[in-house]
Amino acid sequence: MTGELTHMDASGRAKMVDVGEKSETVREGIAEAIISMKPETLALIKEGRIKKGDVLAVAQVAGVMGAKKTPDLIPMCHPIEITGVDFSFQINDETSSITIRASVRNIGRTGVEMEALTAVSTAALTIYDMCKAIDRGMAIDGISLVRKSGGRSGVYERPPAIK
Amino acid sequence: MTGELTHMDASGRAKMVDVGEKSETVREGIAEAIISMKPETLALIKEGRIKKGDVLAVAQVAGVMGAKKTPDLIPMCHPIEITGVDFSFQINDETSSITIRASVRNIGRTGVEMEALTAVSTAALTIYDMCKAIDRGMAIDGISLVRKSGGRSGVYERPPAIK
Amino acid sequence: MTGELTHMDASGRAKMVDVGEKSETVREGIAEAIISMKPETLALIKEGRIKKGDVLAVAQVAGVMGAKKTPDLIPMCHPIEITGVDFSFQINDETSSITIRASVRNIGRTGVEMEALTAVSTAALTIYDMCKAIDRGMAIDGISLVRKSGGRSGVYERPPAIK
Amino acid sequence: MTGELTHMDASGRAKMVDVGEKSETVREGIAEAIISMKPETLALIKEGRIKKGDVLAVAQVAGVMGAKKTPDLIPMCHPIEITGVDFSFQINDETSSITIRASVRNIGRTGVEMEALTAVSTAALTIYDMCKAIDRGMAIDGISLVRKSGGRSGVYERPPAIK
Amino acid sequence: MTGELTHMDASGRAKMVDVGEKSETVREGIAEAIISMKPETLALIKEGRIKKGDVLAVAQVAGVMGAKKTPDLIPMCHPIEITGVDFSFQINDETSSITIRASVRNIGRTGVEMEALTAVSTAALTIYDMCKAIDRGMAIDGISLVRKSGGRSGVYERPPAIK
Amino acid sequence: MTGELTHMDASGRAKMVDVGEKSETVREGIAEAIISMKPETLALIKEGRIKKGDVLAVAQVAGVMGAKKTPDLIPMCHPIEITGVDFSFQINDETSSITIRASVRNIGRTGVEMEALTAVSTAALTIYDMCKAIDRGMAIDGISLVRKSGGRSGVYERPPAIK
Repeated sequence: MTGELTHMDASGRAKMVDVGEKSETVREGIAEAIISMKPETLALIKEGRIKKGDVLAVAQVAGVMGAKKTPDLIPMCHPIEITGVDFSFQINDETSSITIRASVRNIGRTGVEMEALTAVSTAALTIYDMCKAIDRGMAIDGISLVRKSGGRSGVYERPPAIK
Repeated sequence: MTGELTHMDASGRAKMVDVGEKSETVREGIAEAIISMKPETLALIKEGRIKKGDVLAVAQVAGVMGAKKTPDLIPMCHPIEITGVDFSFQINDETSSITIRASVRNIGRTGVEMEALTAVSTAALTIYDMCKAIDRGMAIDGISLVRKSGGRSGVYERPPAIK
Repeated sequence: MTGELTHMDASGRAKMVDVGEKSETVREGIAEAIISMKPETLALIKEGRIKKGDVLAVAQVAGVMGAKKTPDLIPMCHPIEITGVDFSFQINDETSSITIRASVRNIGRTGVEMEALTAVSTAALTIYDMCKAIDRGMAIDGISLVRKSGGRSGVYERPPAIK
Repeated sequence: MTGELTHMDASGRAKMVDVGEKSETVREGIAEAIISMKPETLALIKEGRIKKGDVLAVAQVAGVMGAKKTPDLIPMCHPIEITGVDFSFQINDETSSITIRASVRNIGRTGVEMEALTAVSTAALTIYDMCKAIDRGMAIDGISLVRKSGGRSGVYERPPAIK
Repeated sequence: MTGELTHMDASGRAKMVDVGEKSETVREGIAEAIISMKPETLALIKEGRIKKGDVLAVAQVAGVMGAKKTPDLIPMCHPIEITGVDFSFQINDETSSITIRASVRNIGRTGVEMEALTAVSTAALTIYDMCKAIDRGMAIDGISLVRKSGGRSGVYERPPAIK
Repeated sequence: MTGELTHMDASGRAKMVDVGEKSETVREGIAEAIISMKPETLALIKEGRIKKGDVLAVAQVAGVMGAKKTPDLIPMCHPIEITGVDFSFQINDETSSITIRASVRNIGRTGVEMEALTAVSTAALTIYDMCKAIDRGMAIDGISLVRKSGGRSGVYERPPAIK
């Protein structure tokens, strides 16, 4: 593979690569993050959700808004008209962690991988923030692209063994 | 420990906890993230830095700006007048990864842990973005608080065994 | 009508509904807000406009910029490429109030009702801000959608009796 | 009263009034908004909250974030380090409406009335957004300052008869 | 003078310099910009102002808001609680230009030179935007710091001969 | 030429002109700015670039992000999906200055002149910020549109004699 950093111009500085030549297609990016915590912290989050307080509801709102802020956060990202965002949270009792997954879709000249990655990262950071008073040792791992489709490069799927 | 989610109000919904009673002290938060990639990708980043293009320079700018955007990203975070941000990148050839570390400081009624965590997350996502055309399988792990000081709860240090 | 909250996913949490299936059409949203104040306050605003200071000019700029900030303010709103914004202010001497009306237009897969509502709300809040030193009792009422057109659901017109 | 629009400079244009001479005091602003809807809409919101979906949780997150965006939305507002935000929602079955109340606090040279008003407005607009597919006739009324304290001008309380 | 770029860290990358050691003082920054245009364009702006439309009113609002966005625009700028902003516009018929001057004030650990420079730049760009349909050849010159006071480095005044 | 300020509505207040009737075409805007400084300052920037610190790299990142912020900064600008941004810096030893040039491209109903002008202005302000501790007398001149293409009004080229 003759890899080449596409965000670099001839003088070696970063640039926003031109996507004007690309055609508008339906695109989707799916990303994942895992936040680990003490079992007591996970128990509190679960109770909160069962009752009415809902750490995950706040994380989900933050994640959706984070997806929209991607071009404002990541310097070389193009502004994109996102058409939809879905979130899911999976509670893993055995590992005392929560898996966050987001799917972002658009119809455009460039895809939404970064939007999906930013969405799950923001949701994970929000969970950290809401629980940090009781558990500063929480850690966020496994932020990765699960799948992307649409566009010239076609479908990418994360190899099964990665995590 | 009788943990209690401090960002929840009586009806179980999230709130921005009041810090008006806290005193203004010098505070610091140090956070870390690790991004893993293919050896070829790491080699390209390293060459870029040696020459003049500089993925890490863009990541560092994004990380500093990300620290400032924290209250805009994380719903219950207080706006904070950051007084300084430092970044360092450590290239790990044996694991084909880069360790990103940020220290954020302020003088205020609440600390900058979230700012440090947001800074390293944004820098890691920026590295992903700039290299994704050649390596979609990059993963971000180990986002965690290394140390925080200042304020009523004093010093926190990450236990040595966490990663 | 079998109403169903479209912004809720299966687990009951909010989502950004997918509009990718919708077709791009010309859309318009018209919204209104009324701000009531003391007659002296209204007189000062009117004089200001007649001379050269212009509370309403500032409100109008804020309203146009507010329309553009809608997806940043309202969590589940899609980013939209607004194509135009018009504002009008009607001074009501008999009720000592100002009626603010905004029309927002776009060509896209989802409409601009929220943009129009955010525009008039921001303009009304700006009038409050600029006059609050002399009249803290101002009130904003009647924020409502006057008309929307375009898209699958067609034209909506506010029933005549609402205000 | 010899009212004078403090946000106007000598040439009649708007300015950001200087608060550098004011002393730092503890300040609070409490504001209110009322959103009216069809009884069926209110019923769906209530069920959602009882089960696990929660329109009001999203509105509350949006309102807290809206408070932080005030200086970005309202042109002549000063940037302020908010120290806390509380929200409450009161469901009024007889009038088929929800009363939204927010209290915002800070320690500074200028107060948080606009932050409280922006918070309730943003929360009300978010409720509108999440329910608009089933009820476009919702209306937002009574956005007003309930109480403010702190600073040179002391305490203001909304007269009881206003709404 | 042994100049040294204070925004560079040991590895040569940019950093946000720490101001935590500095004391809080009253600070002011005054900056200027000049926008030149065709005499017909200047005449239209002047008429607009005399009547009621007001290009300069929009520019002034944009400039005040631009000052507040400085830490969001300029990567290594600290967030600052601005306490006041003043604008003035001087119409120069003989050179067919407008001189824009802004004074920004704060009480803090670092000054507001960049805020003043960003304010006049934003106002000048706004004038360009509002008139560009009739005069694309407008040019902005002389963006410079006129004076700054407060802080360890004391008063700076622009040498008289600069423009 | 019967010039007419297109951003004014009938009452003389500013509006966001409607571009819904325009057709989507490929558009480009190229703008320029020149920042002058002391020869010692220029020398430090050049050394920094040759080694590894890179004032211009930070300026370039800020400029690209500034282009994306244009609709947030300039009140009557439409939100635009930029498709690409290129930057170049030319060091002028004889005049002790740096010429900044940016090209911004989009496919849409309105062009990117303001994006290009905002990009070079933000980059120039960033250079000022990073060097201001050693050279407060830096000045930014010649911010102007070099060329624009696409859209109904066709190609504009800056007359050769302007600077």
